[in-house]
Amino acid sequence: MTQSNSENRKFVLAERPVGVPTDSTLRLETEGVPVPAAGQMLLRNEFLSLDPYMRGRMSDAPSYAAPVEVGEVMIGGTVAQVISSDVAGFEEGDWVVAFGGWQDYALSDGTGVINMGKSPENPSWALGVFGMPGLTAWAGLTKIGQPKAGETLVVAGASGPVGATVGQIGKILGLRVVGIAGGPEKCRHVVETLGFDDCIDYKADGFPEALSNAAPDGIDIYFENVGGAVFDAVLPLLNPSARIPVCGLISQYNATSLPDGPDRMNLLLGAILRKRLTVRGFIVFDDFGQYYPEFSAQMGDWVAQGLIQYREEVIVGLEQAPSAFVGLLQGEAFGKRVIKLND
Amino acid sequence: MTQSNSENRKFVLAERPVGVPTDSTLRLETEGVPVPAAGQMLLRNEFLSLDPYMRGRMSDAPSYAAPVEVGEVMIGGTVAQVISSDVAGFEEGDWVVAFGGWQDYALSDGTGVINMGKSPENPSWALGVFGMPGLTAWAGLTKIGQPKAGETLVVAGASGPVGATVGQIGKILGLRVVGIAGGPEKCRHVVETLGFDDCIDYKADGFPEALSNAAPDGIDIYFENVGGAVFDAVLPLLNPSARIPVCGLISQYNATSLPDGPDRMNLLLGAILRKRLTVRGFIVFDDFGQYYPEFSAQMGDWVAQGLIQYREEVIVGLEQAPSAFVGLLQGEAFGKRVIKLND
Repeated sequence: MTQSNSENRKFVLAERPVGVPTDSTLRLETEGVPVPAAGQMLLRNEFLSLDPYMRGRMSDAPSYAAPVEVGEVMIGGTVAQVISSDVAGFEEGDWVVAFGGWQDYALSDGTGVINMGKSPENPSWALGVFGMPGLTAWAGLTKIGQPKAGETLVVAGASGPVGATVGQIGKILGLRVVGIAGGPEKCRHVVETLGFDDCIDYKADGFPEALSNAAPDGIDIYFENVGGAVFDAVLPLLNPSARIPVCGLISQYNATSLPDGPDRMNLLLGAILRKRLTVRGFIVFDDFGQYYPEFSAQMGDWVAQGLIQYREEVIVGLEQAPSAFVGLLQGEAFGKRVIKLND
Repeated sequence: MTQSNSENRKFVLAERPVGVPTDSTLRLETEGVPVPAAGQMLLRNEFLSLDPYMRGRMSDAPSYAAPVEVGEVMIGGTVAQVISSDVAGFEEGDWVVAFGGWQDYALSDGTGVINMGKSPENPSWALGVFGMPGLTAWAGLTKIGQPKAGETLVVAGASGPVGATVGQIGKILGLRVVGIAGGPEKCRHVVETLGFDDCIDYKADGFPEALSNAAPDGIDIYFENVGGAVFDAVLPLLNPSARIPVCGLISQYNATSLPDGPDRMNLLLGAILRKRLTVRGFIVFDDFGQYYPEFSAQMGDWVAQGLIQYREEVIVGLEQAPSAFVGLLQGEAFGKRVIKLND
């Protein structure tokens, strides 16, 4: 199915999922194309970003952001074209980055919308290496990680849009970079295409030992977006004064209960104390949004120079979004997963 | 028993304790007074500091500092007088701060020794408010805690030398300060003498609710030196972007196994992520030793102006040190516990 000129398809949150989202979590609804009021513009979404944080917005557990209400359209970053505009600075045919949600069309008053002009190169990259995942990688590594040349950086989710960017920036900055990814194909990509020094398959037998062998001088920076068994393998390898930016815990998002004991919470606090660790969680636009222009210029240069490679996984059709999202949470994605709404 | 001019009494580590140190952990030995070599000075210890970190040095579990070897004298900070000196800058009769250990006499080549001159006021305070505990409080609160006037600071171990100082600095800086201490007498002292806004007895029924009521706007800075059930009560109250300097975990030092489950390690990581917490362990002289002069001048002013109160618990006799140390770990101390070697 592709987009219509007369109808808006939208996925609304039908019920809050317990554990993995199911077919009952989201509901596809159809309505007329919304009509902009004075001071608004009409956007046609071209690409929808799929990101792990969306799982959190489906739940009403206390979190850093308000949940999506049941019955409301599912939120999400989009790259869109302006169909009509009564907003200064935007006109028909402009490509924009917006938060248009899981639907064909969206209205906007321009708040938080970035105009990319009439013919941007690779417009969908604004949802990845030039957007939230790229800024997350850059700010988490440089502002929290405080990297020094020669140190060892370990990156979880190394083939994903954040991890891939973290590791490549680490190489530019002179670090030894070890990725962690799921399966030999992703690990090969991480080393051969992205240029990491090594990549360890967390699904393979002997993962903790392999990680230890790949970080013979210990770990100075661990970029955390996974948690669970990956963190368990990292913790004993952390060096004194190591830094741990925490931008995600994808292994935990579908968890419905805590694992069995023993209770290691004070063990983690003890490691933080004895190793003098800095562990810091961050939400990139809240904590580091002010650095977006600096990041954007720097990343533009790096990509232009071929120093940063970027892999996208484009899935066509809004109707694919729910299953593509569940697959993302389960580690199936290989590169930045986006939905292309028109084929 | 008091000091002799001809003998050196010393406590050596007899065996590594499992759990709470026992009568078999340390052994009192007697030898002749050590004879300084060229380039050394002989120190007679007047005061011995007792500090929770010493428990860690009794164990050979991986930690930030090498353990005391079995058979070696137990380490510890001391205030001493110079008996004879072949070290430039030190002469007979000078009072010094040193790491003289649990014994009557010590030799030193002057490394790391601070000369307080012939007649310092309150020389033992150099082991507390003007020394390691004071610097720990000041650096942890100001450098990691990043306090802003109006925020809420919660301080564990509020009647101890670190916690008491943290809270009083917090009041000087315009924070709402809530202490946590064991028992009504300590809590009264924390509020009435130290000037905290409130103090909650962690041994009383309903401790978590009482803490919640005392921090109606949530917690922006939690100064951690306890862990365990106190941290459990604090965690749900932490505000977004809260900072947690971790300088100790006294509730855990004698633990011999992890508590039963569920395993809350990923729950803690999840809180760090969702609340964008900064959790940082530190060892004060390694991480902030360069600030000692600034701290020392500032603390001198505050104490002179009566803005910082300091409570000491002086126990007379080296032979009392082992039991006084075990009591310290069990929360018995009320103020900074020091051993006075001469009565």
